[in-house]
Amino acid sequence: MNYEILNKIKSPQDVKVLDYKQVDTLCGEIRDCIINTVSQNGGHLGANLGAVELTVAIHRAFNSPDDAIIFDVGHQCYAHKLLTGRFDDFKTLRRENGISGFMKPCESEHDPIITGHSSNSISAAYGIYRAKKLSGENGSAVAVIGDGALTGGMAYEALNHAGDHSGNFIVILNDNEMSISQNVGGMSKSLTKLRNKARYHRFKFAFGRFLNHIPLVGKSLYKFFYRIKEIFKSAVYRRNIFSAFGFNYLGPVDGHNVKDMESLFKIAQCYQRPTVIHVVTTKGKGYALAEANPNNYHGVAPFDINVGVESCGKVTFSDIAGRTLCEMAENDRKICAVTAAMGSGTGLSEFEKKYPDRFFDVAIAEQHAVTFAAGLAKGGMKPYFAVYSSFLQRAYDQIIHDCAIGNVPVTFLIDRAGIVGEDGETHQGLFDVSYLTSIPNISVYSPTYYDELIYDINLTAIQGGVSAVRYPRGFEIPVNGIEIDYKSDYTVLKGNNDRVIITYGKLFSEALKAKEMDDTITLVKLNKIFPISDSLVKGLINCKKIDFYEETVKSGGIGEHLSALLFENGYNGEFKIHAVDNKFVPMSKTDSALKKLGLDSDNMLRS
Amino acid sequence: MNYEILNKIKSPQDVKVLDYKQVDTLCGEIRDCIINTVSQNGGHLGANLGAVELTVAIHRAFNSPDDAIIFDVGHQCYAHKLLTGRFDDFKTLRRENGISGFMKPCESEHDPIITGHSSNSISAAYGIYRAKKLSGENGSAVAVIGDGALTGGMAYEALNHAGDHSGNFIVILNDNEMSISQNVGGMSKSLTKLRNKARYHRFKFAFGRFLNHIPLVGKSLYKFFYRIKEIFKSAVYRRNIFSAFGFNYLGPVDGHNVKDMESLFKIAQCYQRPTVIHVVTTKGKGYALAEANPNNYHGVAPFDINVGVESCGKVTFSDIAGRTLCEMAENDRKICAVTAAMGSGTGLSEFEKKYPDRFFDVAIAEQHAVTFAAGLAKGGMKPYFAVYSSFLQRAYDQIIHDCAIGNVPVTFLIDRAGIVGEDGETHQGLFDVSYLTSIPNISVYSPTYYDELIYDINLTAIQGGVSAVRYPRGFEIPVNGIEIDYKSDYTVLKGNNDRVIITYGKLFSEALKAKEMDDTITLVKLNKIFPISDSLVKGLINCKKIDFYEETVKSGGIGEHLSALLFENGYNGEFKIHAVDNKFVPMSKTDSALKKLGLDSDNMLRS
Repeated sequence: MNYEILNKIKSPQDVKVLDYKQVDTLCGEIRDCIINTVSQNGGHLGANLGAVELTVAIHRAFNSPDDAIIFDVGHQCYAHKLLTGRFDDFKTLRRENGISGFMKPCESEHDPIITGHSSNSISAAYGIYRAKKLSGENGSAVAVIGDGALTGGMAYEALNHAGDHSGNFIVILNDNEMSISQNVGGMSKSLTKLRNKARYHRFKFAFGRFLNHIPLVGKSLYKFFYRIKEIFKSAVYRRNIFSAFGFNYLGPVDGHNVKDMESLFKIAQCYQRPTVIHVVTTKGKGYALAEANPNNYHGVAPFDINVGVESCGKVTFSDIAGRTLCEMAENDRKICAVTAAMGSGTGLSEFEKKYPDRFFDVAIAEQHAVTFAAGLAKGGMKPYFAVYSSFLQRAYDQIIHDCAIGNVPVTFLIDRAGIVGEDGETHQGLFDVSYLTSIPNISVYSPTYYDELIYDINLTAIQGGVSAVRYPRGFEIPVNGIEIDYKSDYTVLKGNNDRVIITYGKLFSEALKAKEMDDTITLVKLNKIFPISDSLVKGLINCKKIDFYEETVKSGGIGEHLSALLFENGYNGEFKIHAVDNKFVPMSKTDSALKKLGLDSDNMLRS
Repeated sequence: MNYEILNKIKSPQDVKVLDYKQVDTLCGEIRDCIINTVSQNGGHLGANLGAVELTVAIHRAFNSPDDAIIFDVGHQCYAHKLLTGRFDDFKTLRRENGISGFMKPCESEHDPIITGHSSNSISAAYGIYRAKKLSGENGSAVAVIGDGALTGGMAYEALNHAGDHSGNFIVILNDNEMSISQNVGGMSKSLTKLRNKARYHRFKFAFGRFLNHIPLVGKSLYKFFYRIKEIFKSAVYRRNIFSAFGFNYLGPVDGHNVKDMESLFKIAQCYQRPTVIHVVTTKGKGYALAEANPNNYHGVAPFDINVGVESCGKVTFSDIAGRTLCEMAENDRKICAVTAAMGSGTGLSEFEKKYPDRFFDVAIAEQHAVTFAAGLAKGGMKPYFAVYSSFLQRAYDQIIHDCAIGNVPVTFLIDRAGIVGEDGETHQGLFDVSYLTSIPNISVYSPTYYDELIYDINLTAIQGGVSAVRYPRGFEIPVNGIEIDYKSDYTVLKGNNDRVIITYGKLFSEALKAKEMDDTITLVKLNKIFPISDSLVKGLINCKKIDFYEETVKSGGIGEHLSALLFENGYNGEFKIHAVDNKFVPMSKTDSALKKLGLDSDNMLRS
């Protein structure tokens, strides 16, 4: 792609010298580049399009990397990547060995930390800020956080800590009136009030322009600007949630007006107080289809720019889970669905429409979601919390403390379990098996097929206790001519006993391929993966060689649990675990990742 | 103990019929009973003494168990236990098979959930509340939360969710101006402002008295009281953090005046909005020594009532960890200490005094603490987060996402690892080994001796990457005549090869006792417990029988990791793991728990 200005931007310094006409052109080019690239590679579109002017203004007003800029989650960091020396490589976005869709320190000194999960930017930025002050370094730290991410509890923990200090730490609230799903919660109403009460503030007077030409306000000018602050105060400062935490509040300001934002960002740097700047942006800005349907343009697969994102029409594990819950809810008025801002992603849209009273979107708040679900269960309901595997990591303590100790009947529908592909390290669902099975009193299921998923979810409604049903991103690979009795904890496809492959979930499809090539292999598919059935262990005792495959970290996985049981039962054949061994898995297509990890059918045949 | 009124209280109904003179007597008796029992059994004194009148007022104004009352953390639930049929058993407080120091549904229908960890009460209560509304049940749910617990992020997640709904859900903020350590953070200042701005409101007019005689305000009276609300509104309702989340705000009210609280609690039940009632109490109220030094009366061992709590003078693992950090900080200006409201408990008081600039108490906010520490490390510092094992469960995702993926050099000083004794299930440090070792890139140490602890902590400052040093509650058991080279990953005390015991941490002392009785045993002490050293595994290959002992859950523990490695290396002797197998461990003395779990020297000899 060839752009008049964007092609020449090698670092944020090049952004600072542009005049506002050039800035306008640049913003258009960035937007064009993002739409083109995402339409080809997939990625996060709406949030990134909304943050174009914001990012340009940030790089004009602040000095990255001296000022550490952290974009929360990273769904809004594409423009930042384009302005920090990554334009040439941007075409490799989200491809194996290419540019990540999130912040990555190994890509650029302008990415201070790895991002991916929500609501951590203020904590990380504040840590960097305090370290800079301790070392006597120049520069500050800036957290750019969306209104959606602001519903995550750790953001408040950070506001509470940072608001207690007198330094010039800056938080930019990118308020696009919507997180991944429609924003929910009391805070959302509060922000709306703030937005409606104040018209956007414009800063068009003389010293505003003057400020625009001084990249960093010198210490000597501080007193002058401090007095100027008072002029603003009555207009832009008012008591609200941020001031309750000790923060100075500026805004709201139009998040598509670079000049205004730039002025406000420079003014914010003059305070000797932690400051929140409230910026209002439009998700999907500049791409009409995305502006009209922002919900469809959060994370997208490749699409035709002229047509927009279309549903692939294929039913996914998420859809089946959602449908199953709906069917159960029709006959059982105790069935409730809980989501943490992922209603659509986890297939709950239909449930929300049909049973709004029993549908709870708690915002990006996995900790609360788990304990709230435990409360529902204590009140006699049957709650299902549908959540991505990597996001449930946030609620490990709540699963232990509020569910498992009291054996409270909550079911976790764990979506995106296993390799997720292009979202990379931060989103891989590789830990849930370990962290769930470390907790007493939990039953864990990992279905391979849609029918099995339906069976498992129905089962959890009857059996009581804490349950988890985990299933992969995407589609089942259906199979003919094989009988699997989901009621049993496991299924054996006999070969001879010399070589046994045990696996579960999506990998069973790989194992089936291997067995097609070599029918002597005995194949064991676990239906319920934990606790491990006694009869399974006893049945394995006389096998000569067992290979255990699982799409999870080895440490604390089912393979290790089984190895301990095999020893206890006196097994003395060979036993080898094939899993993800003490490493993180970078982005790539799922098939490619499985091959590299030795978890595909070819590797199963070879090992 | 014989009390005029308390002896006769069998349920909250008996509290409702008392006149205010009797109420005064009752409060004095409850206080006396708590002081006496805690002086004998140990327990949480300050917070419980502060909440006596509050609890009496709650049980007069609400109808437990129809109204589910949840005391956050449970550090303030002793009076509740005394008023809900547990007076006779209260002498068994915190003793094996006795009354728990926290809420326990198995003890009483008046305890809706298990408590122990902070900041979850609003989530649980709101879940119960919504379930009640869905089932058409009578009654509401009330969360009683301290100002300290309000610094935990999940409390805000819950406020945000609950504030978005129109029902009469009630949160009582028990503001004792101090959590476990002195309260920190911007919010603390905000609450102080609220307290100072308003004098306590008194409710002495006619209909107040009238209200006092109607246990539940009937539907028909609702409209009347709704209009009365307007009279209060201007006086007691103002915009603050709670209103930002959509909550109605009432207070502050004197938390030692039963009558006033009772009136306000009844009024709060008339709103069709979620409501926060701000109650101001004094920690340690009624016991002069505790009022004067509330920091010393949080969790206490048995003490002489006339003398008060005294330091036992014995140095603990926590003290050594704190001292070591101090010594390191003197020579290395990059050493920082982070705590989540546990500075004193984790031995950091001296560090705080000596290096206030590098000491960060972030309040009860483990998630933020971890990511903030990661930020400090990214900024070039060497942060140490000292935290109890069971509380670090809250930050599992942050350890993965913000520390391990980027290999950010943060060290966790994990205190109270293993069995903790009388605090029971919720506080046992039995999961850290599993959850930490499930994460790639982490080195884990589990010292047995003070010198080893000192060595390990110093080592983490040099080696980089994510490290954890975990150590037990209490004291080392020193030993003479044994040479342990902490620089090696493990130490072998030779016997013969027929029987090998492997263990680490505190249990090594038990194993030494076993070896004293039977010197043929070969004893292996792990110094670094993870990753497991290759040479250890290779050295074990020819051993006939290996028993692995660890004071942690079996699932995902070091024993299981080792069993997988033994298989990979072709070991075909016996291998058995002795650990906590898929169950929670209730309160009891530590020694008694270890014996029951089969982890003491006698069991080691027998097995």
